Amino acid sequence: MTDLRDNALRSWFLGPRAENAGLLEGLVVEALRDHVFWRRNFHPEDGFAIRELDKRSEGYEDAVATLTQELLGLLAALKRDVPFFSGRYKGHMLFEQTIAGQIGYFAAMLYNPNNISAEAAPVTTRLELEVAAQLSRMVGYDPDHAWGHLTSGGTVANFEALWIARNVNYLGVAAAGAAESLGVGLEVALPGGGRAPATSLPLWELLNVENVAALDLWHALWQCAPKEDVRRALAAHSLSDVGYQDYGLMLEKRYGEALPAAVVLVASTAHYSWEKIVRALGIGANRLVHLPVDSRFRLDPDALWDQLRQFAASRTPVLACVSVCGTTEESAVDRLDRVIEVRERARRELGIAFHLHSDACYGGYSAAVTWGADGQRRSGAQIRRSTGIAWPSDDWVDAVVALEDCDSVSLDPHKLGYVPYPAGAFLLRDRRARDLVAVNPPYLTPATASAADDELFLGRYIFEGSKPGASAASVWLSHKVLPLDERGYGYLIERTAIGARRLRDGLAAADLGRFEVLVLPEPDINIVCYIVCPRSGASLTELNELNEGIYRRMSLNSETPAPEYIITRTRFQSPTYDGAVGSILERLGIPVEEWRAAGSQGLVVLRSTVMDPFLATPGPGSDHVTGFIEALARAAGHGGSQAQ
Amino acid sequence: MTDLRDNALRSWFLGPRAENAGLLEGLVVEALRDHVFWRRNFHPEDGFAIRELDKRSEGYEDAVATLTQELLGLLAALKRDVPFFSGRYKGHMLFEQTIAGQIGYFAAMLYNPNNISAEAAPVTTRLELEVAAQLSRMVGYDPDHAWGHLTSGGTVANFEALWIARNVNYLGVAAAGAAESLGVGLEVALPGGGRAPATSLPLWELLNVENVAALDLWHALWQCAPKEDVRRALAAHSLSDVGYQDYGLMLEKRYGEALPAAVVLVASTAHYSWEKIVRALGIGANRLVHLPVDSRFRLDPDALWDQLRQFAASRTPVLACVSVCGTTEESAVDRLDRVIEVRERARRELGIAFHLHSDACYGGYSAAVTWGADGQRRSGAQIRRSTGIAWPSDDWVDAVVALEDCDSVSLDPHKLGYVPYPAGAFLLRDRRARDLVAVNPPYLTPATASAADDELFLGRYIFEGSKPGASAASVWLSHKVLPLDERGYGYLIERTAIGARRLRDGLAAADLGRFEVLVLPEPDINIVCYIVCPRSGASLTELNELNEGIYRRMSLNSETPAPEYIITRTRFQSPTYDGAVGSILERLGIPVEEWRAAGSQGLVVLRSTVMDPFLATPGPGSDHVTGFIEALARAAGHGGSQAQ
Repeated sequence: MTDLRDNALRSWFLGPRAENAGLLEGLVVEALRDHVFWRRNFHPEDGFAIRELDKRSEGYEDAVATLTQELLGLLAALKRDVPFFSGRYKGHMLFEQTIAGQIGYFAAMLYNPNNISAEAAPVTTRLELEVAAQLSRMVGYDPDHAWGHLTSGGTVANFEALWIARNVNYLGVAAAGAAESLGVGLEVALPGGGRAPATSLPLWELLNVENVAALDLWHALWQCAPKEDVRRALAAHSLSDVGYQDYGLMLEKRYGEALPAAVVLVASTAHYSWEKIVRALGIGANRLVHLPVDSRFRLDPDALWDQLRQFAASRTPVLACVSVCGTTEESAVDRLDRVIEVRERARRELGIAFHLHSDACYGGYSAAVTWGADGQRRSGAQIRRSTGIAWPSDDWVDAVVALEDCDSVSLDPHKLGYVPYPAGAFLLRDRRARDLVAVNPPYLTPATASAADDELFLGRYIFEGSKPGASAASVWLSHKVLPLDERGYGYLIERTAIGARRLRDGLAAADLGRFEVLVLPEPDINIVCYIVCPRSGASLTELNELNEGIYRRMSLNSETPAPEYIITRTRFQSPTYDGAVGSILERLGIPVEEWRAAGSQGLVVLRSTVMDPFLATPGPGSDHVTGFIEALARAAGHGGSQAQ
Repeated sequence: MTDLRDNALRSWFLGPRAENAGLLEGLVVEALRDHVFWRRNFHPEDGFAIRELDKRSEGYEDAVATLTQELLGLLAALKRDVPFFSGRYKGHMLFEQTIAGQIGYFAAMLYNPNNISAEAAPVTTRLELEVAAQLSRMVGYDPDHAWGHLTSGGTVANFEALWIARNVNYLGVAAAGAAESLGVGLEVALPGGGRAPATSLPLWELLNVENVAALDLWHALWQCAPKEDVRRALAAHSLSDVGYQDYGLMLEKRYGEALPAAVVLVASTAHYSWEKIVRALGIGANRLVHLPVDSRFRLDPDALWDQLRQFAASRTPVLACVSVCGTTEESAVDRLDRVIEVRERARRELGIAFHLHSDACYGGYSAAVTWGADGQRRSGAQIRRSTGIAWPSDDWVDAVVALEDCDSVSLDPHKLGYVPYPAGAFLLRDRRARDLVAVNPPYLTPATASAADDELFLGRYIFEGSKPGASAASVWLSHKVLPLDERGYGYLIERTAIGARRLRDGLAAADLGRFEVLVLPEPDINIVCYIVCPRSGASLTELNELNEGIYRRMSLNSETPAPEYIITRTRFQSPTYDGAVGSILERLGIPVEEWRAAGSQGLVVLRSTVMDPFLATPGPGSDHVTGFIEALARAAGHGGSQAQ
């Protein structure tokens, strides 16, 4: 089986030397002509708006000349773009895209469907829902209860997660307020067990109703009174209608207490977009609480527990906790299974509940590794038989399987899904929560629309409006060719994990003359981090200068228009990396205080994302492990001096 | 000149019968091969990852078979898509895209640049900034002081506008608080004239500092103390850091007053996304104040003045006012020049200041009409000489030219820019305001990055992260071929305005047997609204049933898989359309009370967006004005009975 998959892999991409150029060109021309003849066959009696004679006119010819000339200029300019396709690119999370993703995008782009609703995209809105169901299944959700859609990228997906989380968080308050004003009695399940009338609960308990219980309560409310009355009563008690400024006053008046402002917990290594998101939502950057990570860059579950205890003691509502599956810098995968244990314990022992979101924008697709062709989960041992290496560990599998217990997951097809930008995705375990952000509640839907039509009006439930149906077609076709299991994406990502380990092992063993390479802990997926060190030792400043110099020589910039290999770098700063950096500094012989004092300079760390599946074996072409190490040695040799 | 432009127009699109198929195919193949040979020329010594022999393996062949089969399936499915390209499509704001937009997207998509930063997109980030400068110039901004970028669409662009507006609105408070804690004295310009020390101003006045004055104050603050101190002091007093929940308490403590929650003013016909936006930002849907529109669906400036007076009297801060340039339903263009007069008067007489945003998502590109090939503005009379009809009026030109006085503008290249999704744009008149939403303030930029590099790190200033560079290339190439003046987009949009009037005149004069067509007021751009009425009169319910039936017969749905022509419809509901619907109801003989009682059913209005430039003249093909009227007559004839 491995051989067949390895050969299939060779058809999935255009290839570093455009080896599959004939295949791609054939499909592109086919898709274009197919579209052309669709137009020709649509009411052939309509005649022509553009006649052959028009094409011989001066105005037409001049315009075509302009178009062609400017296109040639664009093509020339693009030659200065980054060769993501090459094994020589070892930088950001960028590689080439699957042919399926490219041709799916191109074919649908000719039709330019707008996935805001079925009326503007009868075909691709269905594909989008199909894709969302596939992704839901991959993360372990029940597609019948889950819901999802594509977004422009991870930021919008994460934004929607927290936007919905806030609405769910305040749903208990809103439903209790509405029930009171409607004069109906409703019971709600408590996190510690048992049930109580919603209208009798104090504010703290209403803010700590579990997601499913809150949605059940809300659902029950709609059964108690005419829909228009419920809608109005809810609006009078919902944060999204009332707005923060008046809501605080309202709660203080009703409950006689002003609880501390709600917090959002994230791993300290979380993407910087979370800061944007809490700022935009009005939650405030100061209410974003960063949790320490361990030496593998994973959220520390014990630290989470300590924080939750403190927040419970100070009665500070926890709006949401964000765990990361595949950090942007290191591809670290949080021990989500342990995070979920902590959440469960907090519910039982502290009586607190919160929305748990996994930011799996980078790593989400690696869940494909856990699925067999038979639709069953594979164990760690089964997967290791396929990879032939010690990856993944059983812990890793547990962590990834635990995605199924998150309230929401964001994951980007345009990252490890290998499709063209833009394609992010947002998945919700309990589809009912989407109604909390619907602007046009379905209850007001005209009777003429069927439930199926309603489902296809995506614009109602999502943050964005107009959006490319081509993106849905792209992801859909790529999933058809590369199934989300061991045959397709699972295999692809296994290869990158193997390649990343080949690169890391090669670096660890490399002889760079005056220098050696300190490799950081084994990545959870496929991003390799390393630091080049003089064998004679160096201060933090010297080390940073050396590695920054190497980075400049090995990246595409005005100084080096044609680097041999391309890498990138990050800076481990305090306090973000406090929990992770100890043993690294020790090996470097740098005192922690020196690092702390460096502030935003931090510790420069070189980074190579291995999305290239061909790196796993030396293969018939050049070996880009040995080649890279040689280039790194050359760059290091020049690194001490000023880059020219 | 008109003749040359008319011939050029015929090269700009693939054409309703794919008349330019050869041109497009040639360019597509050229772009693809150009990319292929770029790969081949990149380190030719690297050898091949995919060998010819691999292509003869079973695994490869099976995978290619799957890809081809699934693509054919996708192409077949796409045949059920909507024929936006045809003159028979008269529905939503969708048409085909310029060839330049299509080929620009395709060419760059092969490189898959990510416009989050120059490191991931060295070429297309530059194209994006160039596009932003072109659009800035088109709306009348000074590109040296303005700033802009592309977004996934109008919702995100509008969201950014209000997000920035909020930060500017509270900037006076933040800067005064920071100045106080830093112990520095700063003066600020007051809206009514004169200057005062910022720290001595009461809250109401701090919330009513004009945008430029607030940004000047902020700028001055950064000169007064070390940057890190300023940063910290500002963070302690900024809403985006502190969050709404604590900010209210903080202000009450400092200023001893809790002002009413801030409001956002929008025209009642504004897009529904504004409701999403204020909900998400935590402002609250209840604080979105809808201003009435007049009989032309334009925001009523007198009503705006009345509202502002009331808010000044109740000391309710106005966060922003949103004016619309091209409503989604009617393409109505607010009298922005008069809105600006009202704002000026409010500043002078009431001492209030607020951010003015133009939601020009639909109509923004029509500003191209106001520019001559010589880079000078054209007068109404000059433009009318080009159109040969009474459009546009001098008032319209004044309204569009007034865009230059808005603090921000959103406009969608994927609407009247005729490029593929996704392409929205956000423009800011005073570029300094972008720093208020930067997550990584430029002050913390490592010294290694030059100011030019910094400028290309778009991800820092925008809401989204990863984004398609292909979209920038698409818009850029389309602007190259169709300049943003009378030669390109100006001419294109003129043609659609002429076509819309031909359609409207045709409908007004149409003899539909038992029926006649009531046309709504002349559109400000190119969306024609109309109602089919039985000559014998009808109740509102009968009329709605008739028009809803026509809509169903003339749209693509399960009942009518192949309609002759495709239209869409909207519902004019109370109170949104209170100011607009009077004379229409009068002509229909329907009492206003009957309409109000209809609630969400409202008045069904048929709608045809004319983005098709070929409708302006009967042309060599079928005449889709007469053809459409005949089809409408047939649909109306069946309309009374149940659709089959």
